[in-house]
Amino acid sequence: MGKIDMSKYQIRTDLVLDELDIVNDDTIKIDKRKIDDITVTDVLVKDEFENILRKKKGRYITIEYEDVTDYNNRNKVIKVFSDELGKLLDNLNINNNDECLVIGLGNEKSTPDALGPKTIDNILVTKHLFQLKGNKVESGFRCVSAFNPGVMGVTGIETSELIKSLILTLKPKFIIVVDALAASSVSRVNKTIQMTDSGIHPGSGIGNSRKEISKEVLGIPVIAIGIPTVVDAVTIVSDTIHYMIKHFSYMEKNINNPSNRLAVKKVNYLKKKINELNVNDKKKYMGLLGELNEDEIHSLIYEVLSPINYNLMVTPKEVDFIIDKQSEVLSSGINSVLHKKVNLEK
Amino acid sequence: MGKIDMSKYQIRTDLVLDELDIVNDDTIKIDKRKIDDITVTDVLVKDEFENILRKKKGRYITIEYEDVTDYNNRNKVIKVFSDELGKLLDNLNINNNDECLVIGLGNEKSTPDALGPKTIDNILVTKHLFQLKGNKVESGFRCVSAFNPGVMGVTGIETSELIKSLILTLKPKFIIVVDALAASSVSRVNKTIQMTDSGIHPGSGIGNSRKEISKEVLGIPVIAIGIPTVVDAVTIVSDTIHYMIKHFSYMEKNINNPSNRLAVKKVNYLKKKINELNVNDKKKYMGLLGELNEDEIHSLIYEVLSPINYNLMVTPKEVDFIIDKQSEVLSSGINSVLHKKVNLEK
Amino acid sequence: MGKIDMSKYQIRTDLVLDELDIVNDDTIKIDKRKIDDITVTDVLVKDEFENILRKKKGRYITIEYEDVTDYNNRNKVIKVFSDELGKLLDNLNINNNDECLVIGLGNEKSTPDALGPKTIDNILVTKHLFQLKGNKVESGFRCVSAFNPGVMGVTGIETSELIKSLILTLKPKFIIVVDALAASSVSRVNKTIQMTDSGIHPGSGIGNSRKEISKEVLGIPVIAIGIPTVVDAVTIVSDTIHYMIKHFSYMEKNINNPSNRLAVKKVNYLKKKINELNVNDKKKYMGLLGELNEDEIHSLIYEVLSPINYNLMVTPKEVDFIIDKQSEVLSSGINSVLHKKVNLEK
Amino acid sequence: MGKIDMSKYQIRTDLVLDELDIVNDDTIKIDKRKIDDITVTDVLVKDEFENILRKKKGRYITIEYEDVTDYNNRNKVIKVFSDELGKLLDNLNINNNDECLVIGLGNEKSTPDALGPKTIDNILVTKHLFQLKGNKVESGFRCVSAFNPGVMGVTGIETSELIKSLILTLKPKFIIVVDALAASSVSRVNKTIQMTDSGIHPGSGIGNSRKEISKEVLGIPVIAIGIPTVVDAVTIVSDTIHYMIKHFSYMEKNINNPSNRLAVKKVNYLKKKINELNVNDKKKYMGLLGELNEDEIHSLIYEVLSPINYNLMVTPKEVDFIIDKQSEVLSSGINSVLHKKVNLEK
Repeated sequence: MGKIDMSKYQIRTDLVLDELDIVNDDTIKIDKRKIDDITVTDVLVKDEFENILRKKKGRYITIEYEDVTDYNNRNKVIKVFSDELGKLLDNLNINNNDECLVIGLGNEKSTPDALGPKTIDNILVTKHLFQLKGNKVESGFRCVSAFNPGVMGVTGIETSELIKSLILTLKPKFIIVVDALAASSVSRVNKTIQMTDSGIHPGSGIGNSRKEISKEVLGIPVIAIGIPTVVDAVTIVSDTIHYMIKHFSYMEKNINNPSNRLAVKKVNYLKKKINELNVNDKKKYMGLLGELNEDEIHSLIYEVLSPINYNLMVTPKEVDFIIDKQSEVLSSGINSVLHKKVNLEK
Repeated sequence: MGKIDMSKYQIRTDLVLDELDIVNDDTIKIDKRKIDDITVTDVLVKDEFENILRKKKGRYITIEYEDVTDYNNRNKVIKVFSDELGKLLDNLNINNNDECLVIGLGNEKSTPDALGPKTIDNILVTKHLFQLKGNKVESGFRCVSAFNPGVMGVTGIETSELIKSLILTLKPKFIIVVDALAASSVSRVNKTIQMTDSGIHPGSGIGNSRKEISKEVLGIPVIAIGIPTVVDAVTIVSDTIHYMIKHFSYMEKNINNPSNRLAVKKVNYLKKKINELNVNDKKKYMGLLGELNEDEIHSLIYEVLSPINYNLMVTPKEVDFIIDKQSEVLSSGINSVLHKKVNLEK
Repeated sequence: MGKIDMSKYQIRTDLVLDELDIVNDDTIKIDKRKIDDITVTDVLVKDEFENILRKKKGRYITIEYEDVTDYNNRNKVIKVFSDELGKLLDNLNINNNDECLVIGLGNEKSTPDALGPKTIDNILVTKHLFQLKGNKVESGFRCVSAFNPGVMGVTGIETSELIKSLILTLKPKFIIVVDALAASSVSRVNKTIQMTDSGIHPGSGIGNSRKEISKEVLGIPVIAIGIPTVVDAVTIVSDTIHYMIKHFSYMEKNINNPSNRLAVKKVNYLKKKINELNVNDKKKYMGLLGELNEDEIHSLIYEVLSPINYNLMVTPKEVDFIIDKQSEVLSSGINSVLHKKVNLEK
Repeated sequence: MGKIDMSKYQIRTDLVLDELDIVNDDTIKIDKRKIDDITVTDVLVKDEFENILRKKKGRYITIEYEDVTDYNNRNKVIKVFSDELGKLLDNLNINNNDECLVIGLGNEKSTPDALGPKTIDNILVTKHLFQLKGNKVESGFRCVSAFNPGVMGVTGIETSELIKSLILTLKPKFIIVVDALAASSVSRVNKTIQMTDSGIHPGSGIGNSRKEISKEVLGIPVIAIGIPTVVDAVTIVSDTIHYMIKHFSYMEKNINNPSNRLAVKKVNYLKKKINELNVNDKKKYMGLLGELNEDEIHSLIYEVLSPINYNLMVTPKEVDFIIDKQSEVLSSGINSVLHKKVNLEK
């Protein structure tokens, strides 16, 4: 059997939760809370975990929810998001009057990548009002500007360079960067907000490599907020293969136990940890495929799909509608945190 | 091992070529021609093949091409498409002055499903000019109207009902229906135009069940023109599993033959027929999975993916750009066939 | 002095209020009410007034407001609109379960004309749910479908023909037609909702002649709802000339009375009746121009502007934003009247 | 009669041709050429004319045409525009390999103001390709980046500041700025391209005050290219009043001369110089209004319109379609001048 080149492909994910699914290390401190059916996970990635978790050190707050297309659910998610973002800013010693620049990454012409630009469209900007002579902006409003740098294929300009130059000119005290993320598990797509003080790093987003946008590089706090809106084709295939193995395993164990039969439908394979089956079972269910480890499977999928020559993504069919609602969550939450006068209950 | 419910899922495809990949029947007459790197396949589906090919009887002309994003390639594809459409109309005894209604199916707000509405936007309509009193439309222009019925979730109206009522009112001599299609193979997505005189049948498009739109129902010739713009998640997984089996098989046979090594990269697994491996090989490579037949694999994939609760589709990331170009191909070609005065070389 | 051809141009207005500004006839019964700063005017145009008011007989309810871009103001207007529409339906003996078809007229690609299509986008349609087998739609929801017929230049199809055919197929009990209107006074643009049971008549909207859409023609009640979103260039010039005459008159009378000087700024010339100045004053202020009557002035303006060869319209610069809000008012109000379960206080 | 406050309102125009209509000074050198039915006017505004012409010193090239909606006409205009732009760059000693940044001013969400952003969308950018390691961009392509800074009400950021910071970062050799202009005459709207090496100055565009963007401020050549897409309401009224005066004058002189009657229709009042009637005639035709000078009339119109509280603009009804075509002219022309390999005859 030919060796698979492991260097070829590593599944992309921007989510620390995806990494935590794989890594089992009790020394990583994870704080998990439930607010109704919304889960908030707070992880501090320390220096020593950077390589294991493939995430830069910093605090990662993840909000998991089932749905934001319903008006009431959406308001609940906005409330939780707004509370967590507020605490994150407090934690970074950002004051109520510190000027903020909000940046939306991504391509506004490509629906799943338009989360950043769509969010920016509804950010309440005030910087121009603060600069009017003789104008006194009502208290309760912070000095805020907002910006979509566009994508390099359209502007020819490196996003990180553009942001650097903007910060030199505007001199904000901190920035918030909103971006569509990639997940390594389809079950998290459009159901997760991740925010972190570690910034944005190359390879984030839907496959556009951008240079780092972080406090280290820019000298001011960078809060990165994102929602996974796509998985790539390798992910969906790899996910499915894992679900099939679990399915085989589950069926074999339960099929002769009549009392369990009714339970079959309720099993949610997607919520289970992945690397838990023994090697012999895998081999039985999946033959040669079962002998490969996670990364080898990814590389194999990538290799057999590459002749199609397409950069494939997987999204829900209603992606236009969903992205609208997700961006509404982000802009409402950000506005209410940035401006004390903005009231969530409208 | 638990039985998989075979009735659950059958992979969706609107392409007769996808079916021909599976069915081997020498009595089906297929005419295949090459024009530069464009392939034209002409298949007559007779009564007796309707069930085997899961396609209604009629003539199916398929144009396969690699790219329409390049200006020159696009013009070549437009030319071939226009020639074939012209011949199809001649074949149906449609005259130069027969009034035509062009209908675009699909949801204009969802990019991959917007092929129909986008094409309609550029159809040269003239019916209102023909109806002006005292107005004599220049010869070389046919009486053409065009229409987007929208999707049922937005209008609440069954598309086929709407079209029926429109035909009663407008009384065209024939209709052309443009729609985004689903393919069962990712390699055909955005690389295939299918046109047929058999009309549109329930379940076509991206999973919206619509009632039949055909000569049988409407009483006038219906030419359906479509391009596959998505595959569903089940398809991409199923395709990949097949490619993996072939990959294993190929590697095993060739890996010890040094002279073949260089050729490995060039193998296009996607163009090969699917059901050709022997059962023992499949079992070896894929374990229990290898023992399942095509339909069982689909049902299994569908079953393990269903807890995600999402209606997933797979598209190229540049889908916005690609759909623009594909709709340009269709509208340019249709305009030049409908109106003799419209010149392709503009 | 050359005679001006009076047949050439008559200023377009779809508003009965515009006509009432000109016509002084005490026998026309007008009911006017104030709800906060919103004015509701209820006029019954009888047979004998059709020619005088240049409006077809029927009931015309007009809601005048200052602003719908503010969230609270908008909610007030929605409430009043919803109440009045509900009363109009009751008056026509339309029951809670009577099926409704909502139609949006106008060109969705041209912002000021997109009011109808934008409203339709947010109508809650249910007809497809009522038609699902075995499905029982929750009580409190009416059977509603919605539709944008598009404009004739794009479809080649006469709008009224299309609607007729749709009604034959769908068999609704009544229809609501939403359209952008033209006003003859710039002060009413985007500040007036007119609804009437008299339907839509040729020449309505932004200069697109459409055939009548009314109970007489269709056999079922037709409620037409519209907001003026533009005035034409002739209107703005003619309005301004009138304001100038009033300005001259006012200044002359008040300039020597120091106590009145401060009041000058507060005079709202736009709210005053037009034809009230004496002829000698007009002549003094405006020379030959002042000797012309209303219609002669319109024809003159039209004549001197025609060499520009443009079909000019006048809109506020923020028209995109304003149309979004106006369509939100209409869709929210219509939804809450059609479906008892839809609650205005969301 | 009360004094009108002259400081209140001065009609906005960005066109040097509009100023030349008013100013009669033989020492201003104007070079006028005809290419088919396209007129090219080349004016050098010297220091001493800055105040008279209310335009900053520099070279102003104006291209006047009747129509760009027709394919052939459009190609002719593109050719002339491209030739003139090429000569302007040569004149500024800009070399074929000098890096260029193209900037689109204006609000992409407001159709008449979207000319800049729409043009940018079709600029062929290459800077990211020049920066790829090991990549050698084909000769014939210049290093080009492109950017839409957005409008201050949306970003909170002063456009000129943003551009300054961008130039510090990207270090282009020159910039091209594309913007929608205001005209003081409706006859020039959408029929004029103005380009100048004097840059952009406060108050340009549709009423958004922006700080200066010029060689003086930025240190590199700034070529400003614009097309007037709107006039304001004051302009259309003021224009019409002038046309009416000329109309009265013309009619009076010609009405008794039967041989002239046929000519009446052909008179294009719009092309005639404005300030040429004698005061007595004006008074006779227009009464008190005729006694006011140009600026007093503007202030009066502005004053009587201001109670409407609207920022009104006048555009053709087909503005969406026209802006698309105008931006195509600009992007095609700019691409062919910037990249020698881009061929106009596609």
